[in-house]
Amino acid sequence: MGPRELGLPMPVASPEPGQLPGEVTIWEVGARDGLQNEKEIVPLEVKLEFLRRLADAGLVVLEATSFVHPKWVPQLADAAELLDGLDQAPGARYPVLVPNARGLDRALEAKVRDIAIFAAASETFAQRNLNSGLDEQFGMFEPVVTRAVSEGIAVRGYLSMCFGDPWEGPVAIEQVVAAGKRLLDMGCHQLSLGDTIGVATPGHVESLLRAFVAAGVGVDRLAVHFHDTYGQALSNTLTALRHGVSTVDSSAGGLGGCPYAKSATGNLATEDLIWMLEGLGIQHGVDLGKLVETSVWMAEQLGRPSPSRVVKALGS
Amino acid sequence: MGPRELGLPMPVASPEPGQLPGEVTIWEVGARDGLQNEKEIVPLEVKLEFLRRLADAGLVVLEATSFVHPKWVPQLADAAELLDGLDQAPGARYPVLVPNARGLDRALEAKVRDIAIFAAASETFAQRNLNSGLDEQFGMFEPVVTRAVSEGIAVRGYLSMCFGDPWEGPVAIEQVVAAGKRLLDMGCHQLSLGDTIGVATPGHVESLLRAFVAAGVGVDRLAVHFHDTYGQALSNTLTALRHGVSTVDSSAGGLGGCPYAKSATGNLATEDLIWMLEGLGIQHGVDLGKLVETSVWMAEQLGRPSPSRVVKALGS
Repeated sequence: MGPRELGLPMPVASPEPGQLPGEVTIWEVGARDGLQNEKEIVPLEVKLEFLRRLADAGLVVLEATSFVHPKWVPQLADAAELLDGLDQAPGARYPVLVPNARGLDRALEAKVRDIAIFAAASETFAQRNLNSGLDEQFGMFEPVVTRAVSEGIAVRGYLSMCFGDPWEGPVAIEQVVAAGKRLLDMGCHQLSLGDTIGVATPGHVESLLRAFVAAGVGVDRLAVHFHDTYGQALSNTLTALRHGVSTVDSSAGGLGGCPYAKSATGNLATEDLIWMLEGLGIQHGVDLGKLVETSVWMAEQLGRPSPSRVVKALGS
Repeated sequence: MGPRELGLPMPVASPEPGQLPGEVTIWEVGARDGLQNEKEIVPLEVKLEFLRRLADAGLVVLEATSFVHPKWVPQLADAAELLDGLDQAPGARYPVLVPNARGLDRALEAKVRDIAIFAAASETFAQRNLNSGLDEQFGMFEPVVTRAVSEGIAVRGYLSMCFGDPWEGPVAIEQVVAAGKRLLDMGCHQLSLGDTIGVATPGHVESLLRAFVAAGVGVDRLAVHFHDTYGQALSNTLTALRHGVSTVDSSAGGLGGCPYAKSATGNLATEDLIWMLEGLGIQHGVDLGKLVETSVWMAEQLGRPSPSRVVKALGS
């Protein structure tokens, strides 16, 4: 299915492009960030089929799983088996989340070439999620990143709670920039700025991106990761694109959610993002029809409808 | 409930405001555009309570009902009774949709001071919705508008299918501007640009607004009316705000939908709009907590949950 068959109008690019990128890399997090939040553990063969279908739809960065301890995330306890059974698509990357040195060992054993670490921008979240302090976490991550980089592995740094924290409220921009710089300085090739509880709005996004640029971090090293808890994810993404960001995290069908937010609403849906990119004439490389079919199939596996507007509109 | 109790971060206004307005007028369409699409007819007393609660939440423009023939929209057949029973809040306006000369007679009898007419920007929609042609419709509206204006009534012109039409596909920008100008020239004080099937994307919104300005129409005479069928409504609204538009149509709880679109997803939810305005530091005058309570109450009346993300997050 092409855009015409889907009813999508021909692209009408922005007459005032600003720094709008010509191409966007979608960092598809559904298999990891989406499935780790499912109550029921998804069978290994379903995960593998999901990743196969996502790659077939044209996605080229597919975060596959996590080597976090199965005690904390039993949903992804099959990480090693999944990587072993994965038939990697040519040209695609399958990053894996690695929480610590032990996780890196397991990733190296599995011959993973792309990893991500998951840091916190707020003190309370560092304590609750990492059992560490805001400053202390970097001491934990640094040897992991150094060793990974020395093994030729690309490391992405996730920075969570960049806009607000459920316990502390708004998180100071200087604090976020300082934490993000530390992750880049220790060797992360990219920083993904996460609005983990969905409270960001466009002015806040602009302010944070400008503060990073003012601190010497180019937008080419930044990615954005928005949650749609309050319906703001796509507007925030548009704002980031206008500031030159060209890597966007999203989740097929909008899978996932944050256990700390009041609502179950999760990640920006990849389909809703693609609809906007298509309309803006921004290259993305994904076959929207195949992706919608994949999300409809996955919704059947999970036994509930996708929250994506595009999947709802086209998938019935 | 104020923003702090709701968990909304303090406003972080845009550091690059462009023409972002300092204040936005929300044109609340839930009682008319929302309820006219309900399968079950909502009882008169529920409609009156809904309008009372919306005004109590601080909304000052409340499109109340429609004088379209009950044969076509039986949901609003009680228009005259509703206006008779309405306890109008001081300072609030209650516009009523008027389809033709007979509708204007009824509006005048009911002592309505604000009306709206509903025109089409595409040939096929003019034929199907108005049983008229694209050009022919203006001949039908002109005497209605002229008479209303001579009676001191403010007339808003809705222009529907401004971005795409389910039969014709994309609608040419020149055609939309020409149709919109005719409505303004005949005496409408404001033009509401409707994306009736939700296919607009931000570049298209920019292009259309620029074309209106180039044709001599100030953004102060334009309002926008987006549907969230493909998840684009808030991003499109943000784009319109950045171009100086300061009147935005939305529907409490996201009530409503277009019978011609494939999905049931309807109007931009007023709550999701307010969350963004709040974050951008734009004045809107609405108590979000009261509005969410109203939408939760209305969802109970209708027997299904609100599609608004904010209502989902805060209303449970």
